[in-house]
Amino acid sequence: MIAVMSGSFLQRGEPAIMDKFHRTKAALSSGVDIVLELPYIYAVQNSDLFAQGAVQTLHEIGVSSLCFGSESGDISRFTSSYNVLQQEQPAYQTVLQKNLNLGLSFPEASRHAYQQIGLATSEMDLTKPNNILGFSYVKAILDHNLSIKPLTITRIKSAYHDQAITGSIASATSIRKDLLSKGHISETAVDALPDVTIQQLHTYKKQAGIWHSWEDYFQLIHYRVMTMTKEELAAIHGVDEGLENRIKKTARSATSFYEWINKIKTKRYTWTRLQRIFAHILTSTAKADLQPFINAKTVPYVRLLGMTKTGQSYLNDRKKDMDVPLISTLAGTKNPLLSIEEKASHAYYSIIPGEKKQTLHHQELKPPIII
Amino acid sequence: MIAVMSGSFLQRGEPAIMDKFHRTKAALSSGVDIVLELPYIYAVQNSDLFAQGAVQTLHEIGVSSLCFGSESGDISRFTSSYNVLQQEQPAYQTVLQKNLNLGLSFPEASRHAYQQIGLATSEMDLTKPNNILGFSYVKAILDHNLSIKPLTITRIKSAYHDQAITGSIASATSIRKDLLSKGHISETAVDALPDVTIQQLHTYKKQAGIWHSWEDYFQLIHYRVMTMTKEELAAIHGVDEGLENRIKKTARSATSFYEWINKIKTKRYTWTRLQRIFAHILTSTAKADLQPFINAKTVPYVRLLGMTKTGQSYLNDRKKDMDVPLISTLAGTKNPLLSIEEKASHAYYSIIPGEKKQTLHHQELKPPIII
Repeated sequence: MIAVMSGSFLQRGEPAIMDKFHRTKAALSSGVDIVLELPYIYAVQNSDLFAQGAVQTLHEIGVSSLCFGSESGDISRFTSSYNVLQQEQPAYQTVLQKNLNLGLSFPEASRHAYQQIGLATSEMDLTKPNNILGFSYVKAILDHNLSIKPLTITRIKSAYHDQAITGSIASATSIRKDLLSKGHISETAVDALPDVTIQQLHTYKKQAGIWHSWEDYFQLIHYRVMTMTKEELAAIHGVDEGLENRIKKTARSATSFYEWINKIKTKRYTWTRLQRIFAHILTSTAKADLQPFINAKTVPYVRLLGMTKTGQSYLNDRKKDMDVPLISTLAGTKNPLLSIEEKASHAYYSIIPGEKKQTLHHQELKPPIII
Repeated sequence: MIAVMSGSFLQRGEPAIMDKFHRTKAALSSGVDIVLELPYIYAVQNSDLFAQGAVQTLHEIGVSSLCFGSESGDISRFTSSYNVLQQEQPAYQTVLQKNLNLGLSFPEASRHAYQQIGLATSEMDLTKPNNILGFSYVKAILDHNLSIKPLTITRIKSAYHDQAITGSIASATSIRKDLLSKGHISETAVDALPDVTIQQLHTYKKQAGIWHSWEDYFQLIHYRVMTMTKEELAAIHGVDEGLENRIKKTARSATSFYEWINKIKTKRYTWTRLQRIFAHILTSTAKADLQPFINAKTVPYVRLLGMTKTGQSYLNDRKKDMDVPLISTLAGTKNPLLSIEEKASHAYYSIIPGEKKQTLHHQELKPPIII
């Protein structure tokens, strides 16, 4: 079982609550054999680019099937939806563009376009967040005819965006919210988390002194925006349509991250989209940095974060058939994508004081975790 | 009496212990009638550029004489040294260049060159820090034949670099060191400071929560360096000869500002020079930003920070004769030099938490202080 995992920053633009190495340990102790890192430039993106990076990574590592959670739970509906979308592409695009021009956010505009071509029915609702992401995986497989069999399991009891923990099955959003607001692992959270995750959360807090949230980065990101020119801000990935002016204008009076984003937010620029943009500002990820990767046929490397003995023996066999390098430490490795990765990692750890930061960050240069 | 004062960052590359507005109030209460700001790009520089900005500012505002402290205390020796240097320029340049090539710092290389042409005698020692600065003032006046009469008073009892307070007359360095290390105004410091300065230091600490020192900026500057590419770092003013590699290399293991600078320091790259460079990194001041100003015949504007009634009435007369604008608030004013100024100001205040920062920083948009 191979997992592709976001690194320091997550798809919705948030810093991970604890670092990738501690999350890797939790995953390996929970049945995963190999943990690979989804590079920053794929991880902090809309679903299509996110899926492209993930599927290409899994393809390189040679998986036979790919499994994702979804509201639908019926894989045949994903493939049939793919066929519908292929045929109805022009209609979809027209409605999508019209809605974008009306100032709707991309998810909203896309939702209406799906409804128009019949892809928002109760059996297969492509407006639900995990269906959207799953559909992007299926698309990434079918677009390139990859020999990967897509599978899906139904998400039950909890919606992706649920804000409160709903019992032993809960959304990541609700768990993070509970942990960050309470500052400790509550009884409710204990019920919703595997023991190994609880253990890693404890270990991380002891080592880093914190669990990461955007508010911890407020001083840094505020300083950064304030010392950038508007031109520099406009060069950052995601800062379009004069958003640099709005970010600058609202900065002066913002006293917290929450307050700042709330001041910038519009129908078009949703909270998630703005969080991603702020991650790109924090990590200095420019539009130009992404260009080489957006339409690439493959990821430039596969980064191994950790493995079990089983995973290790699989990789020993697989390595020779890979088209791209398998990277297991940043020490001595050079690659344009890795420089972005390093910046993301530096930015992530930068809020941890003194030597604690170095100890944690140093893991980046060590061999992969083996348990 | 008109004073030209550095703003947020000082000549030796340090953040000012309290902000320019509180220092302006102290100056106005101590007998100064008009306080003008020396723009960041002149203030955080070697003595020649520092003097160029200061003398040009004073010339624009129409002063008849200029007074500075020096170890020598004899103004005729400054003017005669100017004449010697004019004649011995080629010899000076040859030795200077030779010493620079040997890896000496500029002050060291210059010191030997002065010795060579006889400008390091006990009567007029151009290797003493305040003589150097004073000589740069005299040079800035005489080079452009300005109608300003230079005057000097002897520095007594305390050397510029003295680390400990030496009684009621003490160096700024020693006073800052005492304040920052103790965190309060000690009996020793009280003896060396005017009452109004003590009062402003108290007020500032109450409002900002801190007195500023480089260590307070360590997290920000470390984050900044870590998320810059080497190319971006090399574009910063002062980062030459591959220094970007040394800054990056030492960054990973540095846990404090002091430790970091100590790791980078060489004979050539002195503490002061590195502090200036770090100020330029913190404020994103690029080589290209400075180009338009380095050999300019005049400063692009004069920034008024505060005045007494006497100062106000002088300025009312003087304003019409000025060749450059007299700026008294940043609100609504645009100028390339002011954008650098704004960035410096943002960077300076960025370490103060939440609303306190805004309250203090907001002074930048208000009319000048009048007392």
